[in-house]
This record gives sequence, C-alpha cells and structure tokens, in this order.
Amino acid sequence: MASIFTKIIQGEIPSYKIAESADFYAFLDIFPVAKGHTLVVPKKEVDQFFDLEEDLLSKIMPFAQRVAKALKATIPCNRIGVTVIGLEVPHAHVHLVPINKMSDISFEKEKLKLSKEEMEALASAIRSNFV
Amino acid sequence: MASIFTKIIQGEIPSYKIAESADFYAFLDIFPVAKGHTLVVPKKEVDQFFDLEEDLLSKIMPFAQRVAKALKATIPCNRIGVTVIGLEVPHAHVHLVPINKMSDISFEKEKLKLSKEEMEALASAIRSNFV
Repeated sequence: MASIFTKIIQGEIPSYKIAESADFYAFLDIFPVAKGHTLVVPKKEVDQFFDLEEDLLSKIMPFAQRVAKALKATIPCNRIGVTVIGLEVPHAHVHLVPINKMSDISFEKEKLKLSKEEMEALASAIRSNFV
Repeated sequence: MASIFTKIIQGEIPSYKIAESADFYAFLDIFPVAKGHTLVVPKKEVDQFFDLEEDLLSKIMPFAQRVAKALKATIPCNRIGVTVIGLEVPHAHVHLVPINKMSDISFEKEKLKLSKEEMEALASAIRSNFV
C-alpha cells in the first residue's frame, strides 16, 4: 500500500508544497515543531533513510540545502536544523526546522497550531525564495 | 582558531575514532544521548551544515551510511537516527544515534555516562563492523 507520503507526492492527499525535483518532494509538516518546519521526502518509497541507495543519499542533502536556503530567507532564525527519525511513517523523510535554540527542534513538545491560511501564506513565501 | 573538532581530527585531542575518509572523520560523542552516539564531521571547518559546499554535502550521507551500518551491526536498535543542530560547536557535524523510540534521540535529557573502558570497547566493536 502506498505510504501517506506517496499519496501526498502523487497529489491524492493535498499538501503545502515547497519544492520538487525528479527525486524529491518538499512540503510543510502539518504538525510543525517550529514555524517553517518542512519535510523532504524521496519519491521512491523506502522505510529507513540509510536503506536509500547511494545515488539518492548523495542527492538528498544538496536538494535539502536549496530548501534550507529558502527557509532561512523567509523565517528569521540562526540556522536550519536537520532530523531523521522515521519511527512513525515508514517512508524515509528529512525534517528541516528553522532553529534559534536547542528546544526549537524538540519533537516531544506540543506542536504549533497554524491555520490553513497561515500555512498557505507561509508555503507561498518559502516557495518564492526557492531557487 | 581551530575548532575542538579540528583538534580531534588532527589528533591534538584524543577521540574514540570510528572511521575516517579523505573528507570526513567519525568518532563517539563523549556526551552520548544513546549508546553508540557518533559524530560525523567534515574535515573542512565550516560552521553551518548547509553552508558546506555541494560536493561535501553530496558525500556526507553516503559516508554516514557506512558508519550507520556499522552502528546497527553493533548495537541492537530499530534504526539509526540523524540530527544536525550545531548551536554549540561552530564546526558542522552530524549526530548518528541508534534509536528504538523517539526519546532515544532527545538532546534535552540527561546524557549517558560510560567509562573510558566501555567507550573504548564500544568504539572497537563498531570499528570492526565498518566496511
């Protein structure tokens, strides 16, 4: 069965899309730990990040870098943090999170609540900074 | 001034080394959040991960994958988590952490305390599984 991320990539489930390449799809996490929290997902459905083939592993961070630069240009922050955990959705994904302090990237705290309008405006602003 | 990681890479400060390539150096974090917590550091001293040049960004995850496989072969775990935060040492580094549950990769809990002998034995076991 297709993962929820495959359904998002194929457009069966809507998403706040940020960017796309031949191999990857980036969209806002709907349970953000910080404003601008974005997921980068390989289109190929593989559970564990380190089970990705070398070609995809070599391409994912250069793609994530382009997304991170768009995030940093949109959201005031010290840097963009990265986390791969993957215990909840069996389709490898990289979390990109604008951070100023350690707790900004904590996954154990309560998630932010942003309205659909706020999420759409945020995605649009980030997209406009993606090059 | 050279960062603490550059001093480790150059051997001025001792480390529990796991592996090394032309571009990267991997060693046990001395403040582990879980057993086997390893840092992968580019030899080139750059503060922010996403300021690394594309060539290094494309090589770092394939190298980290080899380290992750050695960790998984040594330490019983569901998978190897990845985190880049970098607020404390201004030299880009990737945390690799054997995880079974979300809290295993939390940086806000108390760190593990392992003796020098335990760290040496652990590094030796992981090294023996590095290919």
